[in-house]
Amino acid sequence: MRTQVAIIGGGPSGLLLSQLLHRIGVEAVVLERQTRDHVLSRIRAGVLEKGMMDLLRQAGVDDRARREGLPHDGVVLSYDDDRVRIDFAEHIDQPVTVYGQTEVTRDLYDAAEARGTTVLHEVSDVELHDLDEDTPYVTFMHDGQEKRIDCDFVAGCDGFHGVSRKSIPDDVRRDYEKIYPFGWLGLLSETPPVHDELIYANSGRGFALCSMRSPHLSRYYVQCRLDDRAEDWSDEAFWAELKRRIPSEFAEKLVTGPSIEKSIAPLRSFVTEPMRWGRLFLCGDAAHIVPPTGAKGLNSAASDVHYLFEGLSQWYRDSDAEGVDRYSERALDRVWKVERFSWWMTSLLHRFPDQTDFDLKMQRAELLYLRDTPAAQEALALNYVGLPY
Amino acid sequence: MRTQVAIIGGGPSGLLLSQLLHRIGVEAVVLERQTRDHVLSRIRAGVLEKGMMDLLRQAGVDDRARREGLPHDGVVLSYDDDRVRIDFAEHIDQPVTVYGQTEVTRDLYDAAEARGTTVLHEVSDVELHDLDEDTPYVTFMHDGQEKRIDCDFVAGCDGFHGVSRKSIPDDVRRDYEKIYPFGWLGLLSETPPVHDELIYANSGRGFALCSMRSPHLSRYYVQCRLDDRAEDWSDEAFWAELKRRIPSEFAEKLVTGPSIEKSIAPLRSFVTEPMRWGRLFLCGDAAHIVPPTGAKGLNSAASDVHYLFEGLSQWYRDSDAEGVDRYSERALDRVWKVERFSWWMTSLLHRFPDQTDFDLKMQRAELLYLRDTPAAQEALALNYVGLPY
Repeated sequence: MRTQVAIIGGGPSGLLLSQLLHRIGVEAVVLERQTRDHVLSRIRAGVLEKGMMDLLRQAGVDDRARREGLPHDGVVLSYDDDRVRIDFAEHIDQPVTVYGQTEVTRDLYDAAEARGTTVLHEVSDVELHDLDEDTPYVTFMHDGQEKRIDCDFVAGCDGFHGVSRKSIPDDVRRDYEKIYPFGWLGLLSETPPVHDELIYANSGRGFALCSMRSPHLSRYYVQCRLDDRAEDWSDEAFWAELKRRIPSEFAEKLVTGPSIEKSIAPLRSFVTEPMRWGRLFLCGDAAHIVPPTGAKGLNSAASDVHYLFEGLSQWYRDSDAEGVDRYSERALDRVWKVERFSWWMTSLLHRFPDQTDFDLKMQRAELLYLRDTPAAQEALALNYVGLPY
Repeated sequence: MRTQVAIIGGGPSGLLLSQLLHRIGVEAVVLERQTRDHVLSRIRAGVLEKGMMDLLRQAGVDDRARREGLPHDGVVLSYDDDRVRIDFAEHIDQPVTVYGQTEVTRDLYDAAEARGTTVLHEVSDVELHDLDEDTPYVTFMHDGQEKRIDCDFVAGCDGFHGVSRKSIPDDVRRDYEKIYPFGWLGLLSETPPVHDELIYANSGRGFALCSMRSPHLSRYYVQCRLDDRAEDWSDEAFWAELKRRIPSEFAEKLVTGPSIEKSIAPLRSFVTEPMRWGRLFLCGDAAHIVPPTGAKGLNSAASDVHYLFEGLSQWYRDSDAEGVDRYSERALDRVWKVERFSWWMTSLLHRFPDQTDFDLKMQRAELLYLRDTPAAQEALALNYVGLPY
């Protein structure tokens, strides 16, 4: 088999790239390790930056997100009962869109199907070959057979555990990592959200986040221990804990109900450099992970897709290698800023085991400083709504 | 002896308060442990916020500071050879004034002398009494005699090691502290400053600061180990180290010369709460210490003096206790924000022994984010030039 761009990974990055390439007549094949149903059952973030929405429009896949997505003009941060609302409309005049990553992926799959994009599921034993030559190829098992795709480029959209990053030689690659000493216990419930905007709460009992997927579907999180197990948390225990962590005016009106999903996620900051090696480009989680505070996971993958799509467009339409050659530099420049923001929001809002009373005072002072300083609110808004590409 | 306000400590806070009170006809006596020459030989910071300049004007002691002080419209931050200039004129339209703390103190002493303010030097064994009653008094040794001053209020301007803070009972007082694992080695030389604005530099070899007192008097600092001794650093070693830490374009034009002073200062963040107990008010270093990064030591003392002077004015002129009663709350609100800023600038610019490669990347990302984000520059400028009182 031959294609122009072999895309490893059928999550939102890989699918989005394939649809963008399709629009300019560049052929791609997407290889995915899981079944389509499995990919669509993953519950992930749900806050889209304007840049991500623009990319979806550019790919012609934004109809439902615009129709069903909830534009949010602000976000609330609290420390105990003190709080600040960051007003995006006032500072940036640009909302974020609350729309589940699962829904984005579904829309992208529908588009891929409608347009006849080749997406191969349940692919295994993927290996990338000759990445440092002009004629790379990919081998893999599919339908019980060994197969091979020859291509011009390989896009590594296969996540943190995928084969792509590991295909860059150790002596070329440098990894940067921070593991946080806690996790997030998340609960999904068919209840109305406690507030019409997200609430990020720092409390004496740890962090909590009130989020949502729709006006009838709430997503809540509480900071938990790394050795906690989701099955040991009853719904009642979760709701009681959440109530203790959010400002009392919200706690009073929290509507609880049975969970329809409950799981624990660890928090990690991770970046690999470079993001390009020869004919291989890393995109999204394959190259970098952010802790979920600030909702930058999917959005930072989207900015990679943007830079890569620009580079490939230049290559195929203008026979110009500039964008491809500078992909790693451009993507990383923004990635590090987004990593900084996610690390900062995580540091600001969580309780750390080794925190001193002085450290707690710094968290509180930062919240009050934000509350009282429009320029600091504007800087936060810029980051939350999305730094420019 | 009887006075209205007994001021413990004849540094800039105590003297400034005495001169402000003098202007509204409130009597004060200043008690200082050292000789006047000793106080005037202390070398301290040299960057004054507008609020401090306004207070000096209010006290009628700003003539020389306005004539000889250097208005600075910006400051430079660097990480290796990357740098950002924070433009105060662009964001705040308000400069800082470079004018040595020693000069401020000298001006205040001259004013106190001209106006006949009582300043007792070489006072020892100071004890504060009946602070929780309406008739407090102070006892001390002076000129070989035990003396007593009865007063309405006591202003504790006697620094970190003074008696005032310790006079607040342990069960009332709460201290917050952070000790940084490094010091600043400072050198004063009669050489022209390397640049007409301050340069705060983060480098692979640690932090450096290029500062000045006048167009002919430079003050430079390098981050050093806590167990370093100033006498083990030759001038040559200092200059060589400084050159390695600042961006090359500055290093090339650095003019070196013999030191006229060289010393090491530790870095500490410290706050005590409350800042008022009964008839005692803590001011400046007696209540809080900042690391010198960002030049907030004297300036945060000045904001305490402002709030205390307001409270005492209300008391004596309007027979209103509101400002006195709320002194601690008002002063601390700003103190914690200034502590946050000083801690943040220190964290951003120094090398810490336990830093990981990821942490270093966060420092660099923060600098590049500042460079590329006007709102973040504005927030920094606001803090550097001085948060509003």
